Amino acid sequence: MRNIKLVLEYDGTNYVGWQIQPNGPSIQEHLQKALHQILQEDVQTVAAGRTDAGVHARGQVINFKTSRSADTQTLAKSLNGVLPPEIVVLSAEDVADNFHARYSAKARAYRYVLSLQPTALLRNYSWYVGGFILNTGLMRQCSALIVEEHDFTSFCKADSGVNDNRCIVEKTEWKQEGSTLVFEIVANRFLYGMVRALVGTMVEIGRGYRPFDDFQRILAAHDRRAAGMAAPAKGLFLQQIIY
Amino acid sequence: MRNIKLVLEYDGTNYVGWQIQPNGPSIQEHLQKALHQILQEDVQTVAAGRTDAGVHARGQVINFKTSRSADTQTLAKSLNGVLPPEIVVLSAEDVADNFHARYSAKARAYRYVLSLQPTALLRNYSWYVGGFILNTGLMRQCSALIVEEHDFTSFCKADSGVNDNRCIVEKTEWKQEGSTLVFEIVANRFLYGMVRALVGTMVEIGRGYRPFDDFQRILAAHDRRAAGMAAPAKGLFLQQIIY
Repeated sequence: MRNIKLVLEYDGTNYVGWQIQPNGPSIQEHLQKALHQILQEDVQTVAAGRTDAGVHARGQVINFKTSRSADTQTLAKSLNGVLPPEIVVLSAEDVADNFHARYSAKARAYRYVLSLQPTALLRNYSWYVGGFILNTGLMRQCSALIVEEHDFTSFCKADSGVNDNRCIVEKTEWKQEGSTLVFEIVANRFLYGMVRALVGTMVEIGRGYRPFDDFQRILAAHDRRAAGMAAPAKGLFLQQIIY
Repeated sequence: MRNIKLVLEYDGTNYVGWQIQPNGPSIQEHLQKALHQILQEDVQTVAAGRTDAGVHARGQVINFKTSRSADTQTLAKSLNGVLPPEIVVLSAEDVADNFHARYSAKARAYRYVLSLQPTALLRNYSWYVGGFILNTGLMRQCSALIVEEHDFTSFCKADSGVNDNRCIVEKTEWKQEGSTLVFEIVANRFLYGMVRALVGTMVEIGRGYRPFDDFQRILAAHDRRAAGMAAPAKGLFLQQIIY
């Protein structure tokens, strides 16, 4: 059996998320259908990270086993020919048998886009933060507090079913790009809803809705109820998986 | 009567273009409907530049006369409340009575986005140029040839109905941005279809489908049939109008 790795870009706007669900179209369902159509074989795909409804990906990684001998370049092109236009295969390659899209990953990079003005072009790809002035200095100070290893229970959806809530954050950055303010974060792992809860809380502080000191208090509380609202899914992008 | 200037951003994907047409929804139709709804008065809008079906705008400028006393900030917010999400008013201001969105404009800036890889997120906002390797050096040489004043008849749709086809190009630039290659052009005026014909021809040369010398020959021919194919509308953005 071959083990094949795909890198995917997708627009999550009209999907229920990565994972197959009974309540609507998922990326996984469309991908597995396309793989079945091209390979004439049922395959099971494993993704590096599940993405929620409305969340986008520029570098989602998945792998699957197949007995077929299709050339990987041809496979990528064939898949793009049958996938809906919101899902694109950027690359396909044979990988070692023990490669696992999720467990082999060393780090993941996410990006969250805030729009500082009302926007038509980014309406599905950013969160327009009202007419508020954001104190980006305070938001940068918050983001500096989460670098290195921390327990992120306060920034995890309560029903995540995970016991160990420690993550090692390698890098965080807030940067202005045109009329957007972008948050970038790289970590060894992410808890369910973590980036959106972090961004939502930092925005509440940047707006002056919460004092800066709250951030450290929330992080230390290990209690999801302590944190701010989750930022909307549409501003979030799974950028890259690092192996 | 007051004279009001609006700056608009819009996603042209599902519109027949700026101008009201019988065959589908236009930006102008939606804007005039929204203005009528808010001002309770019929207004006629003038745009700085017409955009074709599928073409986007980040800084389209329009003006209209009204007898209403609405505050401009409130007007912008009210319009955004009733316009479809693909059309956004970025700003509204009172301007001198003789301001004319089209005739007062000193220069216009357009941007054209080529995608160098298949793309889901930019599928409506770029032209994916196949798997071709583009010779960007040659494309930059072409773009340098059109700076300053030239007769652009060869890059104008034949049925444009304009007599004077001379334009003064202030600036052109091809630049790589991530997995896209972006063409920026600023000129005092543009002929109908000009940016798309220029980009389409430069891409044919960058691909090696035409020799570089063709570009100078086409420009000198003053004949639309000489130029290459028009690049698709979806990669084109009206960026800014300079007054």
